[in-house]
Amino acid sequence: MIKIGITHGDINGTGYEIILRSFESEEMLSLCTPVIYGSPKAATFHRKAIDNQTNFIVRSNVSEIRDHSVNMVNCFGEDELKIEFGIATEDKDRIAQTSIDSALRDIQQNAVDVLVTAPITFSDGTSQADYIAKKLNTSSTPQTMLIADGLRIASVTENIPLQQVSKTITKELISSKIQMLRTTLQRDFCIGNPRIAIIALNPKEGEGTFAGTEEKEIIFPLVQELFAAGTLCFGPYSAEYIFADHNYEHFDAVLTMYYDQAMVPFKTITHGEGIRYISGLPFVATSPVHDAQYELAGKGIASADSFRNAIYAAIDAFRNRKQYDAIHAHPLQKQFYDKRDDSDKLKLDQVSEEEETEVTMI
Amino acid sequence: MIKIGITHGDINGTGYEIILRSFESEEMLSLCTPVIYGSPKAATFHRKAIDNQTNFIVRSNVSEIRDHSVNMVNCFGEDELKIEFGIATEDKDRIAQTSIDSALRDIQQNAVDVLVTAPITFSDGTSQADYIAKKLNTSSTPQTMLIADGLRIASVTENIPLQQVSKTITKELISSKIQMLRTTLQRDFCIGNPRIAIIALNPKEGEGTFAGTEEKEIIFPLVQELFAAGTLCFGPYSAEYIFADHNYEHFDAVLTMYYDQAMVPFKTITHGEGIRYISGLPFVATSPVHDAQYELAGKGIASADSFRNAIYAAIDAFRNRKQYDAIHAHPLQKQFYDKRDDSDKLKLDQVSEEEETEVTMI
Repeated sequence: MIKIGITHGDINGTGYEIILRSFESEEMLSLCTPVIYGSPKAATFHRKAIDNQTNFIVRSNVSEIRDHSVNMVNCFGEDELKIEFGIATEDKDRIAQTSIDSALRDIQQNAVDVLVTAPITFSDGTSQADYIAKKLNTSSTPQTMLIADGLRIASVTENIPLQQVSKTITKELISSKIQMLRTTLQRDFCIGNPRIAIIALNPKEGEGTFAGTEEKEIIFPLVQELFAAGTLCFGPYSAEYIFADHNYEHFDAVLTMYYDQAMVPFKTITHGEGIRYISGLPFVATSPVHDAQYELAGKGIASADSFRNAIYAAIDAFRNRKQYDAIHAHPLQKQFYDKRDDSDKLKLDQVSEEEETEVTMI
Repeated sequence: MIKIGITHGDINGTGYEIILRSFESEEMLSLCTPVIYGSPKAATFHRKAIDNQTNFIVRSNVSEIRDHSVNMVNCFGEDELKIEFGIATEDKDRIAQTSIDSALRDIQQNAVDVLVTAPITFSDGTSQADYIAKKLNTSSTPQTMLIADGLRIASVTENIPLQQVSKTITKELISSKIQMLRTTLQRDFCIGNPRIAIIALNPKEGEGTFAGTEEKEIIFPLVQELFAAGTLCFGPYSAEYIFADHNYEHFDAVLTMYYDQAMVPFKTITHGEGIRYISGLPFVATSPVHDAQYELAGKGIASADSFRNAIYAAIDAFRNRKQYDAIHAHPLQKQFYDKRDDSDKLKLDQVSEEEETEVTMI
């Protein structure tokens, strides 16, 4: 059974509500074993406020968890946590971080398999993904992919001011983001050679032209170059072309240049059911698409759809990644038949030199 | 009967197709009288290619037009125009401009009432709205409003590179755009005191904060100031908040900071049925939301919905503006009752000094 490490996020938001509600149905426990890193007292407080019936069992540490039950690893002992629905209390960052820190410790020791985080934005604007990456000391910046049925969007830049976007999107950065997106799609989504649509930075001007120079100078040459080397990337397309008439359906993923270019059409198209997938971490991590939803906190009306979808996506990706890694663990040397003659003889002396042709063999 | 001046736009696109198809049904001719400024030969060429049955009657000038018929004012005499479906031919700009110039001449002499333009983007990236404003020598830049059922969006900046947006959106510019939008909504859409949602420039960061400084330094103080003076503007809101869950329905219009922030959610929400409304011209002007659609040209599969909606919108706005101007043509001096005493005596000596209170009297 896949063990899902779950962090409680912003304690003043809808975190506990969406967690508890996701495990209301017993069927979820036949899919996975949840391990909530949190405070039993806080959970009970939320549970009462929203009149929820989900039972959880408190464990002092991860070694005690059992399948077929909602496990809660108590990270706060007997501490009373101050909860104020819809208010950014002083302690909220620290309380969320304690939960994340505990989950990270266990996931690094393979005691849990994947991480699903309830939402919080830290007071200084840091995202959970950034916090986790920093804690893990990973060299690469994690990449958020927004996912819903038939739609996957990542962005070259995320939470930065709009005026910095143009100078930030260098050829190297876009290239590394395409590569990261491609690897994630191959490894976690089982897509052999993913087709990626690249979105232009500037608005469309006329037939195939844009009101700016970055497309001609940076994006188009890069797309040509990567395509020639075997990466199926296309564009740049205008955002309106890709998102308006379902044209994103022709691609396995879309890469935008800035955050709102991804988030706004994503939310408009999916109406809040999509999820966030965090690439670039040593384990599979997902999160609902919404934030801590202060306006709904404690009212018992928040939808758990996005959080539940985040759990499903984490399970799928964990299985895909395991399979991918197993297949690629001991690669055979690539072998060629000579097609020029009619013989069926294997040319054992011929060795592949091209990286990208490997993909077509999968 | 309202006379609709119609220009043919890009002769290699779907312009003639959407014009002819809009008048396929006789019912349209009981709503308005179309006056197409174009080339009968070109129209016939398109008509044959798309197998359309709409009949038009050629007039040598606007004085000959009749109600209950599709009038075409011949602007090209016996000239043969070169048409290549889906190709940006050298002459396309000049041919479109001849049509616009003729329509402008007649509309300035009140021979036609409103202008509905089939789409073209000129080779240098100029929009038709900009071309018309230049021809008319108007001091103000026209403002495009995107309109569909329950959704009206205008943008502070339009076709400029993304990297220039931040330095372009000064307090003065945003203020003038809000004022322009407000006047249009009052005069052409019969909305007494319009509620306008202002969108933030930067992506959302946390609960009510943005990843940038323009909101705090420019937009929020301006919104406060204008609101205090009686303009019902609100925000800044994040684009995802306004567009994702139909929150735009709480407002009469939305003002974004840059073009894609308006166009991408608009097209995603409306699926191509919306229209463009051009404010800031001395007459009512509308246009379909799509471009010249080179990919559909000559195939007979283009939808005329947006063009037909552009005609309906122009008719409505023309009537509203006429009524508004009639009501405001000879304003009475404002009169006050003194509410402090019980007498019902009119205070004829008291005069209004506040501009904005006028609106509440309508």
